[in-house]
Amino acid sequence: MKVDLIISADDIKREKVVDKSVVVIDMLRATSVIVTAINNGCNKVIPVVSIEEALNIVNKAKERHILGGERKALKIEGFDCSNSPLEYTCEMVKDKVIVITTSNGTRAIKGSEGARNILIGALINAKAVAEKLIELNNDIVLVNAGTYGEFSIDDFLCSGYIIECLIKNLDVELTDIAKTAHYLYKANPNLEFIENASHFKRIKELNLEEDLIYCCKKDIIDIVPEYADEVIL
Amino acid sequence: MKVDLIISADDIKREKVVDKSVVVIDMLRATSVIVTAINNGCNKVIPVVSIEEALNIVNKAKERHILGGERKALKIEGFDCSNSPLEYTCEMVKDKVIVITTSNGTRAIKGSEGARNILIGALINAKAVAEKLIELNNDIVLVNAGTYGEFSIDDFLCSGYIIECLIKNLDVELTDIAKTAHYLYKANPNLEFIENASHFKRIKELNLEEDLIYCCKKDIIDIVPEYADEVIL
Repeated sequence: MKVDLIISADDIKREKVVDKSVVVIDMLRATSVIVTAINNGCNKVIPVVSIEEALNIVNKAKERHILGGERKALKIEGFDCSNSPLEYTCEMVKDKVIVITTSNGTRAIKGSEGARNILIGALINAKAVAEKLIELNNDIVLVNAGTYGEFSIDDFLCSGYIIECLIKNLDVELTDIAKTAHYLYKANPNLEFIENASHFKRIKELNLEEDLIYCCKKDIIDIVPEYADEVIL
Repeated sequence: MKVDLIISADDIKREKVVDKSVVVIDMLRATSVIVTAINNGCNKVIPVVSIEEALNIVNKAKERHILGGERKALKIEGFDCSNSPLEYTCEMVKDKVIVITTSNGTRAIKGSEGARNILIGALINAKAVAEKLIELNNDIVLVNAGTYGEFSIDDFLCSGYIIECLIKNLDVELTDIAKTAHYLYKANPNLEFIENASHFKRIKELNLEEDLIYCCKKDIIDIVPEYADEVIL
């Protein structure tokens, strides 16, 4: 089993993900939001790239949907929730459909279409992701959403931890970039290096430290959402 | 001054390199070859992407040219030299023109066209490269040639060392990926981690250990070749 890694949503090439087990990682914060929402009992999550698409779906829907997401890390005007996982409580999401659009994560999910499986991963469900990957028994590509088309230290460290969970239980062949992510995690098991991530700093500047604390917890959730046919279940 | 990094020849995007000071890095071994050849007195190096182009140039030339390069790390049939820097001695290259084609390095050089300057960097001239970059006083992109379109640990470590030489003398703003390269180098100042590079292993398997020893020497050459108008001087 091979493990490769793509550094940002803009760097996804179809031939690299096709037929693979893909994990989309945007730990700050889109995939942490999705994992949390599904864990808190939401019916499904529909990820879309543009605000217009999100509004179209919600306007056509018969039942009440929740609109979530961000632009420039801030809540979108008229939306119900921002991109903070802490807003997606049981009270808010139970049995609801969430339509979400974010700058990086939803683009990475859509960009991974063609993969055999598209799992939604973050630090909060990393161990469960690794277990699911072992069960799927297929070559793996960790798709880092990154930040605005750029490599992002946060997603890279999270990938390193998923690899650590994998290699504890399995013999895998790592590409050079996967080896580097794993090395970085092993040198920073408490994620110290994440403070160098420009995206981490940006969220800190917005006084969203509670989000950072939550998103940096390992393995507090043991479900693995999967994207197929336009929805995440 | 900003410092960014591109992980492979296949990942170069024009908008990222245009008007920048680019350093092309293929330390195992194309840029080590070019730096060595220029240092040993060759007249100029013409990098080309295909074997056909190389043969065309040589066949049309009035003076005797040297044909160099590799495919799959091995010498090309009918060529004068392989991709080993140790073959490019003064006796071999003095006052000659070298036409070179390699799997990764020459593609990275050509792919960087549009940059304000395209410098040729390796570990063997890293410090000189940093000094030249400071003199040029422009935003920097370290273009890793990588290996067959993939991220390569060797070039990434070399980039980390160039960044280390830069920041000793200058305040620079590093992107997340540049920070990661620098971190990796700082954690491996004797390049220990390079042994994990699949390309390093491949060259070792070919019994080219003397090349590896040579290419891993820091700062033994103090010139910086530059590519412009199809040639490297």
